[in-house]
Amino acid sequence: MCGIIGIVGTSEVAASLYDGLTVLQHRGQDAAGIATVDGARLRLHKGNGLVRDVFSQTAMSGLHGRIGIGHCRYPTAGSDGSSEAQPFYVNSPYGIAFAHNGNLVNTEALRREMFEDDRRHINTDSDSEVLLNVLAHELQIQDRMALTPDHIFKAVAGVHQRARGGYACLALVLGYGLLAFRDPNGIRPLVLGERITSEGREYAVASESVALDILGFKRLRDVEPGEAVFITNDGQLFARHCADGAVHAPCIFEYVYLARPDSMIENVSVYKARLRMGQKLAEKILRERPDHGIDAVIPIPDTARTAASALAEALGVPFREGFVKNRYIGRTFIMPGQGERVKSVRRKLNPVELEFRKKNVLLVDDSIVRGTTSRQIIQMARDAGARNVFFASAAPPVRYPNVYGIDMPAASELVAAGHTEKEVQQVLGADWLIYQDLPDLVWAVQDGNEKLKHFDTSCFSGEYVTGLDQQYLQQIEMLRSDDAKAARRSA
Amino acid sequence: MCGIIGIVGTSEVAASLYDGLTVLQHRGQDAAGIATVDGARLRLHKGNGLVRDVFSQTAMSGLHGRIGIGHCRYPTAGSDGSSEAQPFYVNSPYGIAFAHNGNLVNTEALRREMFEDDRRHINTDSDSEVLLNVLAHELQIQDRMALTPDHIFKAVAGVHQRARGGYACLALVLGYGLLAFRDPNGIRPLVLGERITSEGREYAVASESVALDILGFKRLRDVEPGEAVFITNDGQLFARHCADGAVHAPCIFEYVYLARPDSMIENVSVYKARLRMGQKLAEKILRERPDHGIDAVIPIPDTARTAASALAEALGVPFREGFVKNRYIGRTFIMPGQGERVKSVRRKLNPVELEFRKKNVLLVDDSIVRGTTSRQIIQMARDAGARNVFFASAAPPVRYPNVYGIDMPAASELVAAGHTEKEVQQVLGADWLIYQDLPDLVWAVQDGNEKLKHFDTSCFSGEYVTGLDQQYLQQIEMLRSDDAKAARRSA
Amino acid sequence: MCGIIGIVGTSEVAASLYDGLTVLQHRGQDAAGIATVDGARLRLHKGNGLVRDVFSQTAMSGLHGRIGIGHCRYPTAGSDGSSEAQPFYVNSPYGIAFAHNGNLVNTEALRREMFEDDRRHINTDSDSEVLLNVLAHELQIQDRMALTPDHIFKAVAGVHQRARGGYACLALVLGYGLLAFRDPNGIRPLVLGERITSEGREYAVASESVALDILGFKRLRDVEPGEAVFITNDGQLFARHCADGAVHAPCIFEYVYLARPDSMIENVSVYKARLRMGQKLAEKILRERPDHGIDAVIPIPDTARTAASALAEALGVPFREGFVKNRYIGRTFIMPGQGERVKSVRRKLNPVELEFRKKNVLLVDDSIVRGTTSRQIIQMARDAGARNVFFASAAPPVRYPNVYGIDMPAASELVAAGHTEKEVQQVLGADWLIYQDLPDLVWAVQDGNEKLKHFDTSCFSGEYVTGLDQQYLQQIEMLRSDDAKAARRSA
Amino acid sequence: MCGIIGIVGTSEVAASLYDGLTVLQHRGQDAAGIATVDGARLRLHKGNGLVRDVFSQTAMSGLHGRIGIGHCRYPTAGSDGSSEAQPFYVNSPYGIAFAHNGNLVNTEALRREMFEDDRRHINTDSDSEVLLNVLAHELQIQDRMALTPDHIFKAVAGVHQRARGGYACLALVLGYGLLAFRDPNGIRPLVLGERITSEGREYAVASESVALDILGFKRLRDVEPGEAVFITNDGQLFARHCADGAVHAPCIFEYVYLARPDSMIENVSVYKARLRMGQKLAEKILRERPDHGIDAVIPIPDTARTAASALAEALGVPFREGFVKNRYIGRTFIMPGQGERVKSVRRKLNPVELEFRKKNVLLVDDSIVRGTTSRQIIQMARDAGARNVFFASAAPPVRYPNVYGIDMPAASELVAAGHTEKEVQQVLGADWLIYQDLPDLVWAVQDGNEKLKHFDTSCFSGEYVTGLDQQYLQQIEMLRSDDAKAARRSA
Repeated sequence: MCGIIGIVGTSEVAASLYDGLTVLQHRGQDAAGIATVDGARLRLHKGNGLVRDVFSQTAMSGLHGRIGIGHCRYPTAGSDGSSEAQPFYVNSPYGIAFAHNGNLVNTEALRREMFEDDRRHINTDSDSEVLLNVLAHELQIQDRMALTPDHIFKAVAGVHQRARGGYACLALVLGYGLLAFRDPNGIRPLVLGERITSEGREYAVASESVALDILGFKRLRDVEPGEAVFITNDGQLFARHCADGAVHAPCIFEYVYLARPDSMIENVSVYKARLRMGQKLAEKILRERPDHGIDAVIPIPDTARTAASALAEALGVPFREGFVKNRYIGRTFIMPGQGERVKSVRRKLNPVELEFRKKNVLLVDDSIVRGTTSRQIIQMARDAGARNVFFASAAPPVRYPNVYGIDMPAASELVAAGHTEKEVQQVLGADWLIYQDLPDLVWAVQDGNEKLKHFDTSCFSGEYVTGLDQQYLQQIEMLRSDDAKAARRSA
Repeated sequence: MCGIIGIVGTSEVAASLYDGLTVLQHRGQDAAGIATVDGARLRLHKGNGLVRDVFSQTAMSGLHGRIGIGHCRYPTAGSDGSSEAQPFYVNSPYGIAFAHNGNLVNTEALRREMFEDDRRHINTDSDSEVLLNVLAHELQIQDRMALTPDHIFKAVAGVHQRARGGYACLALVLGYGLLAFRDPNGIRPLVLGERITSEGREYAVASESVALDILGFKRLRDVEPGEAVFITNDGQLFARHCADGAVHAPCIFEYVYLARPDSMIENVSVYKARLRMGQKLAEKILRERPDHGIDAVIPIPDTARTAASALAEALGVPFREGFVKNRYIGRTFIMPGQGERVKSVRRKLNPVELEFRKKNVLLVDDSIVRGTTSRQIIQMARDAGARNVFFASAAPPVRYPNVYGIDMPAASELVAAGHTEKEVQQVLGADWLIYQDLPDLVWAVQDGNEKLKHFDTSCFSGEYVTGLDQQYLQQIEMLRSDDAKAARRSA
Repeated sequence: MCGIIGIVGTSEVAASLYDGLTVLQHRGQDAAGIATVDGARLRLHKGNGLVRDVFSQTAMSGLHGRIGIGHCRYPTAGSDGSSEAQPFYVNSPYGIAFAHNGNLVNTEALRREMFEDDRRHINTDSDSEVLLNVLAHELQIQDRMALTPDHIFKAVAGVHQRARGGYACLALVLGYGLLAFRDPNGIRPLVLGERITSEGREYAVASESVALDILGFKRLRDVEPGEAVFITNDGQLFARHCADGAVHAPCIFEYVYLARPDSMIENVSVYKARLRMGQKLAEKILRERPDHGIDAVIPIPDTARTAASALAEALGVPFREGFVKNRYIGRTFIMPGQGERVKSVRRKLNPVELEFRKKNVLLVDDSIVRGTTSRQIIQMARDAGARNVFFASAAPPVRYPNVYGIDMPAASELVAAGHTEKEVQQVLGADWLIYQDLPDLVWAVQDGNEKLKHFDTSCFSGEYVTGLDQQYLQQIEMLRSDDAKAARRSA
Repeated sequence: MCGIIGIVGTSEVAASLYDGLTVLQHRGQDAAGIATVDGARLRLHKGNGLVRDVFSQTAMSGLHGRIGIGHCRYPTAGSDGSSEAQPFYVNSPYGIAFAHNGNLVNTEALRREMFEDDRRHINTDSDSEVLLNVLAHELQIQDRMALTPDHIFKAVAGVHQRARGGYACLALVLGYGLLAFRDPNGIRPLVLGERITSEGREYAVASESVALDILGFKRLRDVEPGEAVFITNDGQLFARHCADGAVHAPCIFEYVYLARPDSMIENVSVYKARLRMGQKLAEKILRERPDHGIDAVIPIPDTARTAASALAEALGVPFREGFVKNRYIGRTFIMPGQGERVKSVRRKLNPVELEFRKKNVLLVDDSIVRGTTSRQIIQMARDAGARNVFFASAAPPVRYPNVYGIDMPAASELVAAGHTEKEVQQVLGADWLIYQDLPDLVWAVQDGNEKLKHFDTSCFSGEYVTGLDQQYLQQIEMLRSDDAKAARRSA
């Protein structure tokens, strides 16, 4: 879960990259960075924290240039390190700045090859640094006399042959232009837009179309699976498919939870897809319990609101904002001799008691991962006086880890891993637990673009489109468990 | 618009005050502060910014004590100053820390009296500092041998005689306890709660009941108009009415916009009041245009969502989240040579275009103040393809300044001041503008507690319950106009 | 050990106060603050750290006014607290900002009186806050109709009657002017200067004349013991003696160590006094060991350099800078698994080995307090190859604590307390230890101004000019011992 | 003017590097950095400011490893940029961190070659980054199978063939060890030391021996001109001369001004060299004016003190510390409406007036560059009442720019460029100006090590040992003039 954006403009781009990152911020709040090309120099500023905290006026003032990329980061695959903010940079060949959303499943092998064969040192745990060095190496072995789009596309083809996983990438090649490419399965999203100004045509590439919208760029199309788009310094756009024969399988979790509702991904409106998820859930409820007796449909804010409103409408039951989200959550201080503290979920949500008292309520969330929060919320609904607490998940049971760039715990920490829906219902303490069926979820998205035949649904189905070594999942298990994280942090 | 909270506890209270302030943060994001009583010492930390930014672990570590008060501030009445974070402190008599929500209308006269008669120097523009010194003086002239609740209530009565306006106040009197009091008209809210711990009974007083809820305090009752509540260091509670014969007139704007929906004020659920506002608006619409042809009801997030959902339900029209709020708004950087920037409202809201295209949409906001944002939002709806854009305000036209602690611009900058609803509709560019009628708004609140006979509705009606000198409004006009603010800031 | 400065000017004074504080910084590096009078407002900025770190451009921009005071602090008498930066402020009566150098010996009694009789709360351990409140109270009981210089001098007389100790004080009285006064024995220094500008006459008062010099003020005279000087807002100067019959006894340690060599205190050049100290030491050496065989005189930089050069000259022996002082001392980091660290004194001084090898060296320091550093330095000289290491102290043995504002350890930690000079020589490991005789030290200062008949020499003689309660010294012992300090810090 | 230090230790080295940098801080106060090798990772922290400000406990905690390098920077050759703190890092080949003291005279040509031939992008103006990339390239073209000391020395030989200038360099090669090398003329200093610990032998390399002393390392020898020393990860030391036939010509300015007096450079004690400079000056004075009538010799602190004391001794005239240096210089604030400010030199020095009044004083400085400060100091001496002000410079007239790493203004801004000594005397306003003769300066250093036959004395003689393109000096003129600097800063 990261957000990326790149612009080849006709005037200074840093402020636009900044604005774009603020609307991609939901994809990663850990770190942020911007790199621009200022004549023969690369300007780079990055740091830990929200976009608004990382960039001061001073920092922005240094980011000259009409070509640049930006990144906001959510840590995946065992990286908590502070030195891993992006963009990354290597100075040989040419000078390349690189930003990436996704995750590789053969990082370790690549890292070894890099050092042993290519004598390139990788200094962080980030697979983005690995990808950058693969790209750098593939560029380095091209003809050195004149770097053409052709050479660049050959280098990308080389990357696709070596790297396995989900990745959407942006690279500034100093002296040449902006390169954007996407993994052969098109797992992670990347969208291309243009803006016509008095100075000429400008291009932007971003993780989500909402970043184009806000900057006044018109969405042209998605970058296609395996495709590379290269925009030269003077604004010429070249595109080529650099990988053959792979199944197009976009990540379905983008629609469930990750993307903003006002984004279009693969020509599907995320908002509409969520409405359809709600509708399908309603159908299932009416099918399974025609006499459900639900008095109110209550979303867990914010993501579930869209699906919940459609669900309520389809059920003909009032839609009620029974939980108020605390917008200003503070830190948890440990004070000596301190009395009771607020329960963790209580710091995030507060119930409007009148909406619960003596009612049969249907709580709706986008998905259930660990189950810890859901259990606390259900208890909170009961404490507020609900007669029956039903709970609906707009996604099917999450039973397998995500390995393509969405931060999810180890399988052992997923409440539904190895359990039936009935068992999960018991663990959560719900009076009735309704999960979306996977075909219904697929339909909800597909209905927006019938050309989409496949999706990456691995965390529901356990089927990984890129294939996986068995040992990889074991390693993930080790890296992502909470205990492992705690150990790393205290190291 | 400020939030206050005070606790007399049985163990350390700083972390609870902090948590309480985070849920009162919507009442003021400018500055925050906490004061605690640590034996014979007052501990105080305050600063500009959000609660989570003002308090570091180090700052919290210094805030020892089981009695304390907290404050978050939104500037009113012409104060932008950074030195005006609360609580304020005077060391004579006793040592008093003070935090306050509200605004006085006779500040200038009091300030003069303070210096000339009482030789007390007021060092800021804050009327809180004035109120504190009035209180300090009234306490100083009591019998010095032994300060009893009786003396304290006499001092509060003295304050009520001198101060005019809306005010809810908390004061720590070193060596004695926590004092809470509310203006004789009960304009600003203040609610009392208790919590039973293994160590004994604890009391909390706060601007809104949500701060009690989150800390596990049970709401007992509102502090009454003109009443003072004094809780001694060892947890004994004394209460007395210190002003006679005033009309009880709570601020109706708390229900419209200011308070959190999950708060109870004067035994009225803010959430329910907002549902009723939506319902009344629907009735008006059906009355005036039975064939309204509305395809979707779209709230301006976040406050209007409650009223809009009830409105949609009553109209039998789909409720749609057509605008997505940007949660991570960044700063506006001015970059040399920079191209076009994002329009200001576009930085805050983004339309889901599919909800607008070729539809008749009814946008719903809680109120219309300057009208600037509303006009831009209406235009944004048109740009997204809406056929007709109707606009509903859950409150009547705002035509007069608020002088009791709600930050509102000068009358000259209110779009409805001196204009008919038809004229405002033209200015905003709406195809139809529907304002709530004042009696309907009053009913929507009153229906929750029929004992409430009066409200402060001055910004709609121009009637000020405390009375006003004519020159006061002129002064407000000067202080609050944007030009005046800009001039002050650059000074 | 603190530095204070006050100016009544004809134009903005903050920058001058800042510059003045930088040259008084040797008197205290812990905290700094400036207060100015800006019309009816007091502007105040203070914080922990060096002057250059406490004041940013933003902070300075707020310090408007042509009248102000500044302070830099070195903690004394058990105060490590961060909230004790000066100036302090009380708002009743009038508004008074206060800065002070010195220490009281009856703080506890005053603190009690303050609260019980005057209901004034003292919130810190600082005796400056006590003194400020004594002054505030004495001003408050004057006639309230019109505050004249006469009333102010009566208030100072009241302070002198209640406070016992060494103190040089500056107070801004809002609406009136700048008050400067000094304890009846004149223990702590305070000097008055003037500057004629095109706008008129300006006055400055400071701890040391060097602060006047650097600002272009002409030194007029010292403020006299027990005298108060009051300069009105419009620049009129009034002065009066407010205490009778006390012995004038300036602190002799100012000449030994504390003051800058380029200052004049009580009309005595500190620099010249130090030259005479060196000369007297030389006489003693020649008297005691005519065949001393010293090859080089080596000062411990920086303070001892002046005395050492005169000593070398009088002995006819080369003066050599055998130790180089490290100007950029960093923090001591504790690193896990780290090897040996630099010895503490080695971080401060490095020997030029060639000046020691096979030589008889005479090291000269201004005084010997704990002896720890001296012992390490002597060892360092030996390690560098010195044949014999002689050690001279420009001051007599320090055997008693200082109670008038110089930070010195508890008696139990003074190497010379309860020991003969011979015993100290053994502890330090010197081949010969030469202490200045007290009469010689007194002469060295007195020779510059024969009107000076007495000095506070208490840390050498144990005679305290103000008298002391026996229990006071015990309390000091408790507060100042290193163990006590460590305990407080970890609390 | 930079300071560098590297250690191959047996336990954690970051704290030692930090301590070493603090005593090299006089060589550069602009920026500081440390890089360590932590297993397969390079740890790097750097920033602008003093060592004590750049490194927090958090930063230090990340710098794990028993091998590392440190750097403190003073900008040369037109670099004010904040991104140019060292060490620099490239990840290909191997991962190399690099720190450097000195300056190249063929940077531009190298930079071009780098990009065109080697496709390496240089992102800053720093010639250190250029040198690093030359080294990286030379290493890359070695046999890739197994990097041996032999390959490393060949790479250094390659660097010497391409780079022209003065440079002392340290490089960490990940997986291999620490490399130290010095330019073929040995212009910039570099010294090697060892320390035997219980864990085994450790090596350190630093700009000055004082950094070895303070860490308890024994100085073994200087790294020789053109020599490279390579210490492997497991502590084996290899050394080889990698350049032939160059003249050994150490920078004489190190002895005059730059180095600490307690350092040994090329087996010459800097302190002793300065004593000899003073002695030679005295001889010249006695030769030219046997009846000089000088009453006191007064050094301009701190550097000139050593020479001045020897001069005084040789003349038989008292040595007096007539100027007190302000140790705590603050920022210069520009305040609106502010009155007169302190003169710039007055902020740095304050005269002890008694040492000047009616005396013939001889002020001694190490050298005269722009002359601005000298002129102000001479005027200050006059204002303090001196009868005659003589001025001696321990170095000859500075008439040419330094191009080997010492920050000096453009020739056009050197007071002695194109002027006779008589003319300079007039400009400075001295009653007599005495410059050291160049042969005397050379003798003063050479007398400590007769093997030294040549020095770089270019700023006195205009003879550049490496040869120079004429256009290079013109470029320097453009870059270093104050106007040019001001323009760059505001850009």
